[in-house]
Amino acid sequence: MFYIIDILGTISFAISGVLVALNKRMDPFGIFIIAFVTATGGGTLRDILIGSTPVFWMENMIYVYVIAITTILAVIIKQRIDYLRTPMFLFDTIGIGLYTLVGIQKGINLNFHPLICISLGTISACFGGVIRDILCNDIPVIFRNEIYATACIVGGISFFLLRELQVESNLIYLISGFIIIAIRLLAVRFKISLPSVYSDDEVV
Amino acid sequence: MFYIIDILGTISFAISGVLVALNKRMDPFGIFIIAFVTATGGGTLRDILIGSTPVFWMENMIYVYVIAITTILAVIIKQRIDYLRTPMFLFDTIGIGLYTLVGIQKGINLNFHPLICISLGTISACFGGVIRDILCNDIPVIFRNEIYATACIVGGISFFLLRELQVESNLIYLISGFIIIAIRLLAVRFKISLPSVYSDDEVV
Amino acid sequence: MFYIIDILGTISFAISGVLVALNKRMDPFGIFIIAFVTATGGGTLRDILIGSTPVFWMENMIYVYVIAITTILAVIIKQRIDYLRTPMFLFDTIGIGLYTLVGIQKGINLNFHPLICISLGTISACFGGVIRDILCNDIPVIFRNEIYATACIVGGISFFLLRELQVESNLIYLISGFIIIAIRLLAVRFKISLPSVYSDDEVV
Repeated sequence: MFYIIDILGTISFAISGVLVALNKRMDPFGIFIIAFVTATGGGTLRDILIGSTPVFWMENMIYVYVIAITTILAVIIKQRIDYLRTPMFLFDTIGIGLYTLVGIQKGINLNFHPLICISLGTISACFGGVIRDILCNDIPVIFRNEIYATACIVGGISFFLLRELQVESNLIYLISGFIIIAIRLLAVRFKISLPSVYSDDEVV
Repeated sequence: MFYIIDILGTISFAISGVLVALNKRMDPFGIFIIAFVTATGGGTLRDILIGSTPVFWMENMIYVYVIAITTILAVIIKQRIDYLRTPMFLFDTIGIGLYTLVGIQKGINLNFHPLICISLGTISACFGGVIRDILCNDIPVIFRNEIYATACIVGGISFFLLRELQVESNLIYLISGFIIIAIRLLAVRFKISLPSVYSDDEVV
Repeated sequence: MFYIIDILGTISFAISGVLVALNKRMDPFGIFIIAFVTATGGGTLRDILIGSTPVFWMENMIYVYVIAITTILAVIIKQRIDYLRTPMFLFDTIGIGLYTLVGIQKGINLNFHPLICISLGTISACFGGVIRDILCNDIPVIFRNEIYATACIVGGISFFLLRELQVESNLIYLISGFIIIAIRLLAVRFKISLPSVYSDDEVV
């Protein structure tokens, strides 16, 4: 189950990378690298920061295979990829939930403070997209107006609150994963973004 | 003392990150990340390059707390932050001096060549700003026309010259820290930049 | 021999960095950093990903010296650097071949899967240029229309095919290095790039 979600998340992240790279008119090598970085960049940065090297995708070939096949298929069907937008968005969202929980778990294993664990979860889920945007010479989209990292952070906080309440371990994972997914889906559905801090539309 | 300078430096670096992020009209999450990266990015890169992982801010929560509070306060008082420009510039400059010395010390502990120690000092002090500028899609300002890294390098060279002369250890720290701060202050005060290497204004 | 190629490759990479930095009108510090990053960035990223820290240039001062001297000379003779374009291109190409093989060898030493070894070779050879382009605020040139990484990948595949055929070890290095160099030279000579995946000129 866990494993299937990981693969579906990797596929969705890779496709989102392919779409951005196609948009920048990159060549096939560039497209593959952007797909790879989008799918693995967050976990790679997490592993580098905590010193868990070689990083995760070097020791399990499934990621390389899945991303390579996804990239090829995505390029072939790129005219019709719009039909996949809804399932892709769902996988992507579930992937974010999963990656956040994986990052938190890695932090707990290393006895880090809850805030550091939440950071590691958020990095795992979100920084693939940040590295993708940097390589494509854009300001990272999640720094601008998306409820994306926020969903991971709120989910992470729920995780530790539930833990404090001594909720059963599997239940903690399910509930906090669900919270991340729900926040992300609701934010996209109702076009919610973080409150602005700029004067022209500032209320506070 | 050392500790207070570290915190004041972190605050100044974080505020400089907030100002850049506000300028790019980022959302609250983006602003916090840019503040965090500006304040911790140099030391993080240093720790990754030398393999000192988990990186420093994961094992001492003071950095996360200070940067979070600084970011919130800076966003609230952003209209009046100009009044803080002078003290902030001073803290920032003192911070650079301190971070350079911390980086050099880490290199010495690992028995690196003096030039590598000076590089580590310069990376600690300057590369938070470099990563900030990359995330904000700008060419790093310190690569263009600031006497910033140069101050760290000259201070680092002084450090090892004084060491060669067997000056007492505390005195080495004080003098070379003072040199970094003085060069930076004088360069900003008298608008000095590195000699240009471009033909239209080339003398050599 | 190996050692001389390494140095010549480092020089060529550093000069290519100097040229890009001059083009962006950076100051002397910026020029040196871009030269350094172009020459060492690929190997540094490789070392960080596999956890081989401190990274390679911290423990052998030759890289710092060679890059510093190269940067100074390149800036001095920058008006006449065009005369060096052909030898530089040759050294650069030989450097790519060598760095790919070094990266592959490091992967083999760690018992990685051949595809990961090829990735490490490609990262060693190509990602210095990627980091250079990011610091200069450009989309990395090798993601767009250059047969560059492709040469490394094809060379890497040949390496493992020859190994499978139990060819003698030195011969494997020579042949696969030669393949990388030949592909790169032919691609530049005949202006070959990867097949486009875009509709307006798509054949498939």
